[in-house]
Amino acid sequence: MLLSAPGTRFLRGVLSLVAQCGGDEEREVCAMGQVDLTGKTVLVTLPVIDEERAAFTAVVEDAGGTVVFKREPLVEESDIEGVSVAIGNVPAPRLHAPVELEWLQTSSAGYDHYLAPGVLGPQTLLSCASGTYGQAVSEHLFAQLLCLMKKLHLYRDNQRKNYWHDEGYVTTPAGANVLVLGAGDIGTCFARLVAAMGAHVTGVRRRVVEPSYPYERMATMDELSQLLPQADVVVCVLPSTPETQGMANAAFFAQMKDGAYFVNGGRGDFVVSEDLLAALETGKLAGAALEVTNPEPLPADHPLWQQPNALITPHISGFWHLPAQTRQTIALCLDNLRSYIAGEPLTNQVTR
Amino acid sequence: MLLSAPGTRFLRGVLSLVAQCGGDEEREVCAMGQVDLTGKTVLVTLPVIDEERAAFTAVVEDAGGTVVFKREPLVEESDIEGVSVAIGNVPAPRLHAPVELEWLQTSSAGYDHYLAPGVLGPQTLLSCASGTYGQAVSEHLFAQLLCLMKKLHLYRDNQRKNYWHDEGYVTTPAGANVLVLGAGDIGTCFARLVAAMGAHVTGVRRRVVEPSYPYERMATMDELSQLLPQADVVVCVLPSTPETQGMANAAFFAQMKDGAYFVNGGRGDFVVSEDLLAALETGKLAGAALEVTNPEPLPADHPLWQQPNALITPHISGFWHLPAQTRQTIALCLDNLRSYIAGEPLTNQVTR
Repeated sequence: MLLSAPGTRFLRGVLSLVAQCGGDEEREVCAMGQVDLTGKTVLVTLPVIDEERAAFTAVVEDAGGTVVFKREPLVEESDIEGVSVAIGNVPAPRLHAPVELEWLQTSSAGYDHYLAPGVLGPQTLLSCASGTYGQAVSEHLFAQLLCLMKKLHLYRDNQRKNYWHDEGYVTTPAGANVLVLGAGDIGTCFARLVAAMGAHVTGVRRRVVEPSYPYERMATMDELSQLLPQADVVVCVLPSTPETQGMANAAFFAQMKDGAYFVNGGRGDFVVSEDLLAALETGKLAGAALEVTNPEPLPADHPLWQQPNALITPHISGFWHLPAQTRQTIALCLDNLRSYIAGEPLTNQVTR
Repeated sequence: MLLSAPGTRFLRGVLSLVAQCGGDEEREVCAMGQVDLTGKTVLVTLPVIDEERAAFTAVVEDAGGTVVFKREPLVEESDIEGVSVAIGNVPAPRLHAPVELEWLQTSSAGYDHYLAPGVLGPQTLLSCASGTYGQAVSEHLFAQLLCLMKKLHLYRDNQRKNYWHDEGYVTTPAGANVLVLGAGDIGTCFARLVAAMGAHVTGVRRRVVEPSYPYERMATMDELSQLLPQADVVVCVLPSTPETQGMANAAFFAQMKDGAYFVNGGRGDFVVSEDLLAALETGKLAGAALEVTNPEPLPADHPLWQQPNALITPHISGFWHLPAQTRQTIALCLDNLRSYIAGEPLTNQVTR
């Protein structure tokens, strides 16, 4: 809903709340006054279709502003100069704490690149698109897990060698214990997919909550050393924080059940890659589905590439690849723009 | 339940019903008198665990017979000589209509190899293990479909080249129209898996039936030309019959929706491989998941191997690869042995 009109006094930020937005885990809001965009530029880097482009244009122009559309990979430093609001991801290396930038609404659920020193100035409000990636990312991770369980990665390798060969036993999510680290939007969508196939799912969150479907049990990170040995599948969809970085190390993998699967769809730096590689090489783990890697991109000479039971995808599951999810993410950005101008609380405020 | 005792008169076959067991589609039974196994040999080719071995032994010996265990791939023609009952698959080329063989209980859902002329004599009763493969085969086909939809097969190819590369758009079963040709045990398990992800499933059976979950609609093969253009995914789990052989030909693929997926988990000869290859090469189809091929094994020089959007597995999904399914199949075979001896109806009688 558009409440502001050109000339309305700029009162933003007065009632902002301290947010604790944890990747896809939480939704927090802030409250603000009304915003006048007269003389200001709004940069939209989203892959808008005509109808969405028209909607963004109308909202910005009604608030007196000017809208510029430029797709994310093409954004240069010069495009950011003088921009007051950026909607959609802007390559973090192009940002050098621009003084005019009042608000950045990311199109990604993750936002850790924008928290690095010198990327955003203290005056820039940051909000993310957490909550719109559940379907796209969870389906991708689920497909990766099933691929490993049914050994399709090995059958694909054989196919490319024209080789008709039986790879032996397979496993199933049915009856498996699945541990989801980060029981937020993506984690819960994933939990629903495996629970529908008969898995028993334990969710891990920062705070203690009562379990409800698809979770049979909810736990906190403090219980990790009791939970890891029970899990047939460990799935990480945690954001990158000082606490999560490097958590999946040799000790973590040693605590996992023999023949278990590890899935990482959170951030690559959750994993110590050398330790994961060792756990795969020794056969301790049956497989690892990696939609994110450490480092990223994975260098061409990294030994993980050629580890047969690693299944690597290049951090693409949330990046505009599923049209239904794209529409949902863009709708959230547009809603937040309307809220911003109206001085209403934003969905997924991260900082300020 | 064991009703017969040594010396009971051999009355088998008196009340046999004409069965119409269609692959995994139907279950039919016959009724028989009681059977005495005195002086007779029962060959069991199943991968039994100790407890199952003991159960087969007890049942056969209580009926006065002798049991011999030998795993299927190791069975020679000499092992079949003088055998009255064979439980589990026996390589069809080793069978030359053995005169003593009274009953063959396959461990597979399919049985077409045993219907070929000269394999079984007219006195041999045939029953199959249809109904125990739903989970194993449907999960495999579902994993193959998701792999194609999320382009994991292409990401795997890239991985083996140490290549970090975005393959673009993906699709989802959510909201997709899925057509299941052969809405029996395997087909219905498959339908449940995709319906749980939000697909709209139409089932095709020989006879008209009312739709119920997971099917939104039920149809017959007569409606195929209306159904194919509406389907985002066409899944075949039909047995091989003169009607189904070569059904998926150029005309069939031409009727399919542009960018649709084809999945074959029935019999390879449902497909004219050259026509499928053409439909993939032109991009008419987005992908084909082939758990069975035509011919089988697929020759090393067959062009399907190197078609990037074919995803080939060597007809293994039902072959003792999922332990839970193995126990279920063996339990059915044991139940049928008890029924056979007791003169009770068999599950899945195919012929005689």
